[in-house]
Amino acid sequence: MKLDEDHRTMSVEEKEDTSISVPNNIGIHNVPLPPKKSTLQKLKLKLSEIFFPDDPLHQFKNKNVKTKLILGFQYVFPILQWLPTYGIQLFRSDLVAGLTIASLAIPQGISYAKLANLPPIIGLYSSFVPPIIYSVLGSSKHLGVGPVSIASLVMGAMLTEFVSPVDQSDLYLKLAFTSTLFAGLFQASLGFFRLGFIIDFLSKATLIGFMAGAAVIVSLQQLKGLLGITHFTSKMQIIPVMSSVFSHTNEWSWQTIVMGISFLVFLLTARQISAKKPRFFWISAAAPLTCVILSTLIVFCLRSYTDKISKIGQLPKGLNPPSVNMLYFHSSHVALAAKTGLITGILSLTEGIAVGRTFASLENYQVDGNKEMMAIGVMNIVGSCSSCYVTTGAFSRSAVNYNAGAKTAFSNIVMATAVLVTLLFLMPLFYYTPNVVLAAIIITAVIGLVDYQGALKLWKVDKLDFVACLSSFFGVLFISVPSGLSLAVAISVFKVLLHITRPNIVTMGNIAGTQLFQSLERYKNASRIPSFLILGVEAPIYFANSTYLQERILRSIREEEEWIKSNKELPLKFVILDMTAVTAIDTSGIDTIQELGKIIQKRSLQVALVNPVGSVMEKLHKSKVLELFGSNNGVYMSVGEAILDLTTSRKVEGLA
Amino acid sequence: MKLDEDHRTMSVEEKEDTSISVPNNIGIHNVPLPPKKSTLQKLKLKLSEIFFPDDPLHQFKNKNVKTKLILGFQYVFPILQWLPTYGIQLFRSDLVAGLTIASLAIPQGISYAKLANLPPIIGLYSSFVPPIIYSVLGSSKHLGVGPVSIASLVMGAMLTEFVSPVDQSDLYLKLAFTSTLFAGLFQASLGFFRLGFIIDFLSKATLIGFMAGAAVIVSLQQLKGLLGITHFTSKMQIIPVMSSVFSHTNEWSWQTIVMGISFLVFLLTARQISAKKPRFFWISAAAPLTCVILSTLIVFCLRSYTDKISKIGQLPKGLNPPSVNMLYFHSSHVALAAKTGLITGILSLTEGIAVGRTFASLENYQVDGNKEMMAIGVMNIVGSCSSCYVTTGAFSRSAVNYNAGAKTAFSNIVMATAVLVTLLFLMPLFYYTPNVVLAAIIITAVIGLVDYQGALKLWKVDKLDFVACLSSFFGVLFISVPSGLSLAVAISVFKVLLHITRPNIVTMGNIAGTQLFQSLERYKNASRIPSFLILGVEAPIYFANSTYLQERILRSIREEEEWIKSNKELPLKFVILDMTAVTAIDTSGIDTIQELGKIIQKRSLQVALVNPVGSVMEKLHKSKVLELFGSNNGVYMSVGEAILDLTTSRKVEGLA
Repeated sequence: MKLDEDHRTMSVEEKEDTSISVPNNIGIHNVPLPPKKSTLQKLKLKLSEIFFPDDPLHQFKNKNVKTKLILGFQYVFPILQWLPTYGIQLFRSDLVAGLTIASLAIPQGISYAKLANLPPIIGLYSSFVPPIIYSVLGSSKHLGVGPVSIASLVMGAMLTEFVSPVDQSDLYLKLAFTSTLFAGLFQASLGFFRLGFIIDFLSKATLIGFMAGAAVIVSLQQLKGLLGITHFTSKMQIIPVMSSVFSHTNEWSWQTIVMGISFLVFLLTARQISAKKPRFFWISAAAPLTCVILSTLIVFCLRSYTDKISKIGQLPKGLNPPSVNMLYFHSSHVALAAKTGLITGILSLTEGIAVGRTFASLENYQVDGNKEMMAIGVMNIVGSCSSCYVTTGAFSRSAVNYNAGAKTAFSNIVMATAVLVTLLFLMPLFYYTPNVVLAAIIITAVIGLVDYQGALKLWKVDKLDFVACLSSFFGVLFISVPSGLSLAVAISVFKVLLHITRPNIVTMGNIAGTQLFQSLERYKNASRIPSFLILGVEAPIYFANSTYLQERILRSIREEEEWIKSNKELPLKFVILDMTAVTAIDTSGIDTIQELGKIIQKRSLQVALVNPVGSVMEKLHKSKVLELFGSNNGVYMSVGEAILDLTTSRKVEGLA
Repeated sequence: MKLDEDHRTMSVEEKEDTSISVPNNIGIHNVPLPPKKSTLQKLKLKLSEIFFPDDPLHQFKNKNVKTKLILGFQYVFPILQWLPTYGIQLFRSDLVAGLTIASLAIPQGISYAKLANLPPIIGLYSSFVPPIIYSVLGSSKHLGVGPVSIASLVMGAMLTEFVSPVDQSDLYLKLAFTSTLFAGLFQASLGFFRLGFIIDFLSKATLIGFMAGAAVIVSLQQLKGLLGITHFTSKMQIIPVMSSVFSHTNEWSWQTIVMGISFLVFLLTARQISAKKPRFFWISAAAPLTCVILSTLIVFCLRSYTDKISKIGQLPKGLNPPSVNMLYFHSSHVALAAKTGLITGILSLTEGIAVGRTFASLENYQVDGNKEMMAIGVMNIVGSCSSCYVTTGAFSRSAVNYNAGAKTAFSNIVMATAVLVTLLFLMPLFYYTPNVVLAAIIITAVIGLVDYQGALKLWKVDKLDFVACLSSFFGVLFISVPSGLSLAVAISVFKVLLHITRPNIVTMGNIAGTQLFQSLERYKNASRIPSFLILGVEAPIYFANSTYLQERILRSIREEEEWIKSNKELPLKFVILDMTAVTAIDTSGIDTIQELGKIIQKRSLQVALVNPVGSVMEKLHKSKVLELFGSNNGVYMSVGEAILDLTTSRKVEGLA
């Protein structure tokens, strides 16, 4: 392969050929240490990689003070990036999108508040203040902000376990606001301290299982509204929920059931149509509001016949009242509020960030995860002081927003304005809205969370991910929502550790006609090199796998020797460990290398290490393990060079 | 490099040169999938790698039934491997070694039992039955079995927290035996289910810190005996211990102090001499017994003046009484016993296995970790029924055993016999033995656990390992022994996760005159290839790092483009990801690759993946991500081939 030449031809095209890059007789390359850095420099580099991997301040480099100041303001308030150039064209798009999501946001707000066992009005309040805050601070152009099903459900489940939303409604409301404050503080500080990577520990596989489990539980809980049952468990596990449904069959009301099923079918059909034809997105977007209007009209017209159908009833008119005075830090419940805030905070953050990233990548712009976290966090902090509960970027709303042609975060302001009008003037209209239609809206929303195709793909691609997914699904169904979530995280971490504990080792051979070495099992054109055993170690060497690796490598040597014996091949003389994929090593790993080197040498075999990465090389050097190995410290840049050098020096030894 | 030729010269030496392995014009190699296996086959392979990495039954292969039966018996009872050929020569060595360790075992047994707040006689019982069991079941030739300081200390600390060894001595003793049973059951089942790798999670770094912390605490606690204090805290944290020492200065007894300090100096000097000159190992081995004899004589002779010195007192004569009836499973304390058993079980297992491996590797034989665990487990189960508490292979005893020339596990039987004689006839001699000498023996033993050179090496080689070590040290000192241990494990795991969360990415260049590509930063002779950005990803791609990697790679592209701009180089056209070190990928990782591919392509750059390992290639293929990439699926066997192919196809495109 004529590598050097190749880009000379690409770049300059002046010389035509002659030189080949691999001369017939090549010297052995040294394996250098990485450039020397002091401990402090290394720490700095490491910390900046941990906390600033995306180098968020790169745009400030080499700018004068004024530009820096402007850029700084724009960094903190992304609205300043687009507002100065905002025009009528953009406004028209945003207006349409904003009104469309408002039509979705109003019924959703009411429904999700019910999911969290909160008064419906809180859901509307939460669709007014947070979107305005976000449009100032957020950097996504398509995020539709408001309450979301998962966070609502989890807040409801966690608070209801200790405080009854019916008998202690005042305390319950206080705790909801306090949890929201904690969620906001937690989210903002994650962003501020650039610890955003913590939410990455909710792997996609476990999220699929978790969301499906939550969706099933929520749907089953909605049977309360759908069947018109009045006595219902407040628990969230599948068994008490199902027993509640069937132990109160006398409370089932046929009027409610007929109405519920009809609207559910209508909503699901609308969703199906939009899912099939994206240009009909507005059908599913408008369906909930249509349902609310239709059902309210029906109940109003037939009000003398429908006293058995439970209704929303009186809602207070007017804007969000302040709720700072309702934040509650009594020691008896503050731990509950903090825990609820933490979990709903993480969950809503996960959804918000994922949604933001999805639409950003569709439109080829980038959102800064940590900055988004701060925006969402501040939005929830302010929300908790203005009668809102946990909000974030909602998937359904953002999808509608994007499809309706939103161009900037201004569509959120439009939506907030529409909610404002509703709050000021239209509240009495909800008096006759039946609760059953809210149950239907919730079921339709959460059913979308069941990603069975995703689960199927997990099964096909990665069985262990599928197990993690299933565990979180059943954990949520049978144990509890937070336990299901913890279980899911634990399994994800365990999976990582398992991979590290039992890494792969491949026996390698030369690919005919190249300098390259690959797995003998996988590459049919790779051939074994007599007298050599070349092992590729495919994992960092850590305390957790150092013993295993030692045993496994010794076993490979033993098996190779047995194979040689039975095939009457040349005896084994050299063991080469290809360390290319050993991306890190700790002190236990270094001891293992040393130990291994000693044991192999005692068997009169020679050992060589090939191509350790920088940090590994540095540690091997510092710990003086390499002195144990032969000439050239036993470290080579490539397997080929190791083989060349070892055979040559052996021959020389033989002569001496 | 003439690779093929090289071993032709090595093996056959007939043709002399001509061919070079890398032809001038080479085809692009396919990157094959690993050989197809069914899910079941894969599961089987994976499970056998997890549980049987050392292929323990390989010696049974291709043998007839009788041989298999004999081998089977020998596998279960390793004593059958060496007893049939045992001769007078071996016996002479084992006799000397056995008597030597007996002289160490007797004072140590009494002292360690005191460390666990148990009656001294239990320590002697524990040096009689377990060594005999081990010599039948154990596969190490040099392990000296008996109680050890760490496990004794932890058992004492954990039980004393809930049960007073003075006021509830009967319950305390019962719980100690029950914990021992649990420890044994846990150890045996770890071995039986081949889950031995669980003890690997106690990394060496954390163990150094943990042992040092425990040693400091224990030494400080011995100030009770050394100063003659009678009222002393039963707590294990440094603060209550130190305040106990100085709040009871009125109880200090000068006779005790003088005697204690003298013997301590004597013991430490003996240890120092043996440490400097290994052939004087017997000095430190014999010193404890000498101290016990001397101090007993002194106290006996001066018995009218030394009433202030506390003595061991009456010890029951006779063999281990059975203790099955003392196993205690009342619900009130069974959890405590189980937890204590679990932790002491793990700790003693860690020591026993590590010691066994150390001496095995010195003498170039192998011990099977899982089999050893079963042996140690059975030994503790039997021990718990015969008045013994937790025992294992002790480091000090094994070192003496090895240095005294032990050849087989028979030296343990000799030691047990010596203890037997002591138990039957010599118990009255300990009546006047002062407790202060036991304190001195304990301090000398545990001081050896402080491995400051090890800690120093950690600091030099791996700063994060050093932090883990320090944390477990201070965790033990200031919080508690089990918390310190949990903290240590948590930090070790966190370190692994941190490495995965923030993996290294290197920019690579061509090493002049070769096909090889290496880090530009590290290899000074590596040179950048115009129009190409070659990134080496040095980690598995998981949910925990997929977002980071995406951001980091996009940042690298951005920085490269900025550098090109300011240096007026040829514009970037290709991004190559070297996946050699990506040893695993999960579904989140696959999504990242897909996402990244899309984003980079939107910037009109072409992406190629190089050399994914088997499992990664398989998942990429199954998830159909590769279809996204260009010709050849965008996957190449080597960076060189990728460059060659990409430039060629680009040129062809340009012409078309």
